[in-house]
Amino acid sequence: MIQPAKRKIREPLITLVGAGPGDPELITMKGANALKDADVILYDALVNEKILDYASADAIKVYVGKRSGEHSHSQDAMNKLMVDYALNYGHVVRLKGGDPFVFGRGYEELNFAASYSIPAKVVPGLSSSISVPGLQQIPVTHRGLSESFWVVTGTTVSGAISNDLYEAVRTKATVVVLMGLNKLKEIVKLYQQEHKNKLPVAVIQSGSTDNEKLAIGIVDTIVEVVEEKGIGAPAILVFGEVVSLHPQFQPIRDFFAAIKEEL
Amino acid sequence: MIQPAKRKIREPLITLVGAGPGDPELITMKGANALKDADVILYDALVNEKILDYASADAIKVYVGKRSGEHSHSQDAMNKLMVDYALNYGHVVRLKGGDPFVFGRGYEELNFAASYSIPAKVVPGLSSSISVPGLQQIPVTHRGLSESFWVVTGTTVSGAISNDLYEAVRTKATVVVLMGLNKLKEIVKLYQQEHKNKLPVAVIQSGSTDNEKLAIGIVDTIVEVVEEKGIGAPAILVFGEVVSLHPQFQPIRDFFAAIKEEL
Repeated sequence: MIQPAKRKIREPLITLVGAGPGDPELITMKGANALKDADVILYDALVNEKILDYASADAIKVYVGKRSGEHSHSQDAMNKLMVDYALNYGHVVRLKGGDPFVFGRGYEELNFAASYSIPAKVVPGLSSSISVPGLQQIPVTHRGLSESFWVVTGTTVSGAISNDLYEAVRTKATVVVLMGLNKLKEIVKLYQQEHKNKLPVAVIQSGSTDNEKLAIGIVDTIVEVVEEKGIGAPAILVFGEVVSLHPQFQPIRDFFAAIKEEL
Repeated sequence: MIQPAKRKIREPLITLVGAGPGDPELITMKGANALKDADVILYDALVNEKILDYASADAIKVYVGKRSGEHSHSQDAMNKLMVDYALNYGHVVRLKGGDPFVFGRGYEELNFAASYSIPAKVVPGLSSSISVPGLQQIPVTHRGLSESFWVVTGTTVSGAISNDLYEAVRTKATVVVLMGLNKLKEIVKLYQQEHKNKLPVAVIQSGSTDNEKLAIGIVDTIVEVVEEKGIGAPAILVFGEVVSLHPQFQPIRDFFAAIKEEL
């Protein structure tokens, strides 16, 4: 039986979809519906592949992320691939970990699509900056502890930590650092220079997935706790009094109270 | 036919669910599944009531938000109601606009549930701080323009603007202010004191819904543009170079370029 060439009649369309932190159920309904409708899906390293189950079995699924040691598509090659698929197949979903606009380079992709006059839409996703602490029941804001939160990347284009971090450590904001695990020691030093040695800190690896790992400590101990727990990337760092609300912080508080009594 | 009293045998359980910015399709799959399972739903003013369509027809739905001029439940009364329903009916979903932990007082509710030994879970939601600009294709971060974003409340317990805002205006972070429309003039003044008169600003009302309204300007003009467009609460404010990426900013850029040429 000859199938009508359904795909040839579809207009090109690109949808950037945020996949959320990892748990396939933490994608939005709208994101799942876009996947269902997609002719082609280009997906990242940070995307849980189980999320592809929402897509049609006929959809072309292309992995465009990088994993350590593997060859990966450059952003430029990825952009061209995305446009190529849209022109030839119709609806391309560009599926990205977290939210497309939180260090996701989503705007560059929109811009590239626009340069080919291909309509592009965005479906936001849960950013791990808020949702991963939240799933550990650590609120990024809490009355009396934090009136704001500041989300910073640990890895800038130059490889150095962001200048914004030098300012963030001085403020009362809850500071969330994405892609910062390999800069943890440097960031800890910044807090120590501000004499915030006892500020509570959480480090969470692979939040919302089966591989989730948690380290809770204070500025002076967190590097050690992270090593003890064998935490690796991808991980997010949370600095702020709100971390003290986590049940694992209670023994740390008790320990300091005991020391204080002895003095 | 006599139905077994299904509800009486269910264990008490409380799930805080983030409903996202408004569009019913922008709730997570997990959030929708929690609603489907709920015996009772307590929902906020910021929640689009269409989201309740995911719930079972049998579920008890209670509005606990406040709208201007109407009587509303105090946080304390709401907490008691939530626990009462959980003890008597089983699974209570506390449905909140945005994310439960972004100025959502979610932790207070978890804590109250814990004081009655009722198990409580959290399903994060899309915070309007990221998703509402994102739907307007304004990225909160963008290479070369912004390495971080800072989310601050415009309305603190005391009624004054947050102290964190005084610091935020000095930084290069994209600054997103929630619940700050009625403080717009004050915040604009802070930016003017920093001589950031031409910093791009967006104000978005009811993002992701049919009532969405947008004002784009710069620090010196935004109050006027907001008035012209008749923008009201709930609205979010975005201050930062990333706003210049919005198509509506191009005429503003052209205008300043023309003035510069004349001089």
